[in-house]
Amino acid sequence: MFKLDERLANDTCRVGLLPLCEVLLMNDSQFPWVILVPQLEGLTEILDLSQEDQTRLWEESRQVSMALRELCQPDKLNIAALGNVVSQLHLHHVARYKNDVAWPAPVWGRQPAVPYPQDQKVLLCQQLAEKLGI
Amino acid sequence: MFKLDERLANDTCRVGLLPLCEVLLMNDSQFPWVILVPQLEGLTEILDLSQEDQTRLWEESRQVSMALRELCQPDKLNIAALGNVVSQLHLHHVARYKNDVAWPAPVWGRQPAVPYPQDQKVLLCQQLAEKLGI
Repeated sequence: MFKLDERLANDTCRVGLLPLCEVLLMNDSQFPWVILVPQLEGLTEILDLSQEDQTRLWEESRQVSMALRELCQPDKLNIAALGNVVSQLHLHHVARYKNDVAWPAPVWGRQPAVPYPQDQKVLLCQQLAEKLGI
Repeated sequence: MFKLDERLANDTCRVGLLPLCEVLLMNDSQFPWVILVPQLEGLTEILDLSQEDQTRLWEESRQVSMALRELCQPDKLNIAALGNVVSQLHLHHVARYKNDVAWPAPVWGRQPAVPYPQDQKVLLCQQLAEKLGI
């Protein structure tokens, strides 16, 4: 039975479900930031997925990347599977701008999150869900 | 005509060629760290690749991940396409250990590289090439 890691649940809001992954928006208004979490229990590495599910993960990652690019027009996308702190397999997609607070450094563990105002968060989740057809 | 970015060339040694990507070993003995660079000029985002080449990239990434896991037995693999500093599309694969100098932070831009002794570098490149069949 799949259960989303508590820290991921606390730091994000839910956009919806794709065939393999739960789609989450990181609640940090400094960066449009979407996380995909395969809904399978006990995984920590992409290699733990079957090859079929790896293909599915990258297809869903492609869809998320396109949605972020269309909605947010970033200067750069950062895509990463790290998992050194939260071991449950999850894949980051961060829209980066040359004038964002962390540029050009990676976003992880640098600056505290700045939560969205509630209405902005709801709107971005809706827009992402619409782009992803979920 | 594809030309490897100068900073990537300076920071790495060449392991060999896969069908899509050049395979590079980062010359930093603190972390076994392999970079894949699609041999196509002018790309900055994974989305810039055709869907066929995206599939190829992730297949080559899977092969590199397996090679690193078998050779280096890391506690965690970090896989990332960032490109905020070097814009030429490249995909990092870093073998991480709970006792490495950066754990649990990401490795980028934290600590200066510690080059390998020449013989260790040559050996690791050979072992990687052998695992990858190149």
